[in-house]
Amino acid sequence: MARIVMKFGGTSVANLERIRHVASLVAEEAKEGNEVAVVVSAMSGETNRLVALVDALDADSNQGTAIEDEYDSIVASGEQVTSGLLAIALRRRGLRARSWLGWQIPLRTDMAHSKARIAEIESSAIGPSMKAGNIAVVAGFQGVNEEGRISTLGRGGSDTSAVALAVALKADRCDIYTDVDGIYTTDPRIAKDARRLNRIAFEEMLELASLGAKVLQTRSVELAMNNNLPIRVLTSMAEVGDPNPGTLVCHEDETMEERVVSGVAYSRDESQITLLRLKDKPGMVAKVCKAMADANVIVDMIVQGISKSDSAANLTFTVGKRDLDKALAALEAAKQSIGFEAVKSDSDVTKVSVVGIGMRSHTGVAQTMFEALAERNINVKVIATSEIKISVLIDAEYTELAVRALHSAFELDKAAPPKVSAP
Amino acid sequence: MARIVMKFGGTSVANLERIRHVASLVAEEAKEGNEVAVVVSAMSGETNRLVALVDALDADSNQGTAIEDEYDSIVASGEQVTSGLLAIALRRRGLRARSWLGWQIPLRTDMAHSKARIAEIESSAIGPSMKAGNIAVVAGFQGVNEEGRISTLGRGGSDTSAVALAVALKADRCDIYTDVDGIYTTDPRIAKDARRLNRIAFEEMLELASLGAKVLQTRSVELAMNNNLPIRVLTSMAEVGDPNPGTLVCHEDETMEERVVSGVAYSRDESQITLLRLKDKPGMVAKVCKAMADANVIVDMIVQGISKSDSAANLTFTVGKRDLDKALAALEAAKQSIGFEAVKSDSDVTKVSVVGIGMRSHTGVAQTMFEALAERNINVKVIATSEIKISVLIDAEYTELAVRALHSAFELDKAAPPKVSAP
Repeated sequence: MARIVMKFGGTSVANLERIRHVASLVAEEAKEGNEVAVVVSAMSGETNRLVALVDALDADSNQGTAIEDEYDSIVASGEQVTSGLLAIALRRRGLRARSWLGWQIPLRTDMAHSKARIAEIESSAIGPSMKAGNIAVVAGFQGVNEEGRISTLGRGGSDTSAVALAVALKADRCDIYTDVDGIYTTDPRIAKDARRLNRIAFEEMLELASLGAKVLQTRSVELAMNNNLPIRVLTSMAEVGDPNPGTLVCHEDETMEERVVSGVAYSRDESQITLLRLKDKPGMVAKVCKAMADANVIVDMIVQGISKSDSAANLTFTVGKRDLDKALAALEAAKQSIGFEAVKSDSDVTKVSVVGIGMRSHTGVAQTMFEALAERNINVKVIATSEIKISVLIDAEYTELAVRALHSAFELDKAAPPKVSAP
Repeated sequence: MARIVMKFGGTSVANLERIRHVASLVAEEAKEGNEVAVVVSAMSGETNRLVALVDALDADSNQGTAIEDEYDSIVASGEQVTSGLLAIALRRRGLRARSWLGWQIPLRTDMAHSKARIAEIESSAIGPSMKAGNIAVVAGFQGVNEEGRISTLGRGGSDTSAVALAVALKADRCDIYTDVDGIYTTDPRIAKDARRLNRIAFEEMLELASLGAKVLQTRSVELAMNNNLPIRVLTSMAEVGDPNPGTLVCHEDETMEERVVSGVAYSRDESQITLLRLKDKPGMVAKVCKAMADANVIVDMIVQGISKSDSAANLTFTVGKRDLDKALAALEAAKQSIGFEAVKSDSDVTKVSVVGIGMRSHTGVAQTMFEALAERNINVKVIATSEIKISVLIDAEYTELAVRALHSAFELDKAAPPKVSAP
C-alpha cells in the first residue's frame, strides 16, 4: 500500500465524460489499496471565462487600484466546481470521497495575490481523512493567506499544489496526468522520431521546464527535487488497464539511460536587444541589468561583443517577447546614464537548447552541437551555457531545422544503453 | 448616516453591464454617508448551469449516496464569482470594497446541506471593516457548517442571507432589489389595474410569500418580522436618481393604508386529493396526516365532507403538485390501516387567496369574497382560513377570472385613505 497524489489538468477534466474517466483512473489506484489524494484544475476554458469577466470590468476607470484579491476569489471558483464534481463521480462509483478547498485544508500561502507561494500545508485534517478511507479531492491552484482571503498560485499552479501536497502528506509518489504520455526527447510535432523518456533527472526536467517545454511547471519540479519526491508524468487519456508508463522524474542516480544529452528544447518567446557602442568601463553591464530589473524585466542570455573602437563594446541580451517594449522604454530612459549610442532589437529569434546531466562529466557536447548547426548553415547569434545545458539564439526560421539536426546529432531517436536495470 | 444592507438577485447581476449598474446604485448609498453591505446572488442562469452539471453526474449509479455536501460546494461558487466582480466594479468607481464569502464572515449554519438554516452570523470582522469605510460585498445563499464545509440555504436563500446579515449588523434597513418595483395588490399580468403598495405589514407579506407571490422568500420575512427589521422591496432596473420608492414591509402600526384586504394571491402548485368513504372514527384524520408526514409530503388545505352513509365521510386535502405521486403511493400503502374505499385526485386546480390584517377586526370579507365568486359562477371546492386570509381552491381554468373579480370586489385598484402620513 502506498500513499499517492494524482493531479489532473484542465483538459483531463474538460467535461463530465472526462471527469467520469478520471474517476475510473482514481478508482483503479484506490482499488489497489493505495491512499489517494487527487488534485484537479478547473475544467478547460473555465479559468479563461472567469479571467475574461475580470478583464472586462478591469477596462473601466481607476485602473491603478489593485484587484488581485478579488481576481483570486473569482478564479478559484473554477477548481472549486471541478473538485466537487469529481468527488460526486467517485461516490457514484461506490467510493468514499470528499472535496477539499484551499482554505479547508488549509494550504497557507504568502500575501502575493494571483502569484502566491505556498507557505505551509496543514495535513492534520486531510491526512486522517485519507487514512480513514476517504479519497481526498483537492482544488488545485488555490490557498488561503494569513488574512483569510483566497489566494491563487498563478497559471500552472495546480502542479505545484500537487507536489507540495504530496510532500506534506509524505506521499510515495506524485502522478501528473496530462494530455501527453510523458516527457519527450524533443517536441514530437517537430521531430517525428522524438522518443518518450522512461526517466529523466530533476535537474534536466528543470532546464527543460524553464526552456519552454510546457509539461511541468518549474516550481513544482524544484519542490519535488528539494524533497526527493518522484514525479510521474503520464497521460489521462489512457483507458484503465492500458499500459501507461509515462516518464519518471527523479534523482540522477535512478535515471535509466546512460546518455550525455537527454533532450532538445526550444523557446520562441525571446527577443534580442543589442546596445551599440556602449562605453566600455567597469559596472556598465551592471547598469544595464539594473535598468532592466527596475523595469521588472528578466534578462536571460547575455553576451558582450568587441566593437571596432577600443573604448566601446556592443552588448547583446535577450528578454521575453512581451517584455520587449517595456525593456526598450527603460533603456531609452537610461540612455545617458548607461552611455550607449544606439539600440537594435529583433523578435524574430528562437532559443534552442540541449540539456543533459551527462554534460557534467562528458566533453565534446559543444563541439557536436556547433558542428551540427554549422553543417546546416545555421548562424548562432548568442550562446549561453550552464552546467547541464547549452543554449543558442538563432533566426526563428531555422527553428525546426535546428531542433531536428540536434536531435539527430545526439542520437536521441535511439534508446541509450541502460545504466541501471528498470525497477 | 445609516447602516443598510442591499440585496441584488440573479437578474440584477445577470451580466457585467447589470453589475456595473448595481455598483452605481450601491455607490449612491455610500455617497450619502451610509455604511453599506451588499448581498448578491449568482449571475442568472449560473446556478442552473451548475445544478445541471451535478444532475448529469447524479444520473450515474449508486443513487443512494448523499452528495448534498459537494452540491453545496459546487453551487456556492456562483455567488463567489458575483461577489468578487461587484467588489471590482465598486473599486473601479473609486470606492473601497471587498468580497466576503460565507466561511469568511463566518455565516454559520446547521448541518442540513442544500437547505441549511442560519445558526449565527459573526459580525466581529465584517462590522469593523464596514466601519472603516469598506463596502462589504457578501456572497448570498451560502454559509459554513460546524465541520467547516460550505452549506447553502436553498433556493431564494440570498434573501434570508441579506435579512439575517442586516439583523446581525444591527442595520437600519434591508433593501431587496429585484426585477419588480414593489409588492402589488395582485399579479399585474392578470389584473392590469393592480397597484404597487407603499407599505405592507410583515404578516400580510408572510401570507403572500407562502401563497405563491415569489418576490420575497418566506423565511426572510419571518426573520425580519421577529427582529423588527424593515425590508424595502424595489427595482434594480431604475437609474440612479430615478424615483424608486418600492414597498416597505414593516410592522402593522406603520402601514400606510386603512384597508381590510391588501392583496389577492394565487398558486397553481396545488393538487387535490379526496379519500372516499373514509371510516368516520376518532383519529382518522391524524392517520392520514401521519401517512403524509412519513412520506415527507406537506398537507395544505384540508376539509372533511359528509358522506351519504352515516358511518363514513369523504376527506379532501391539497398537496404540492410535485408531491402528488408520492402522496398517492403513500396512501395506497396505508389504505388498510387508514380505512378508505377509494382515492381521487385532481391537479387542475388553483388556490386563490385574499390577504389582509384588517380582516382581524372587520367582518364581511368572506361574504364579499364568496358573492364575487358566485356572481361569476366559480365553484369553490375547498375553503381554508387563517386570521388574516381566506383561501379557496377552484378549477384552474377560472384562475384569472377569480383573481380579477376579487381584486375588483375589494377595490384594490383604488388607493385607500391613509392611516398615518407617509414618512
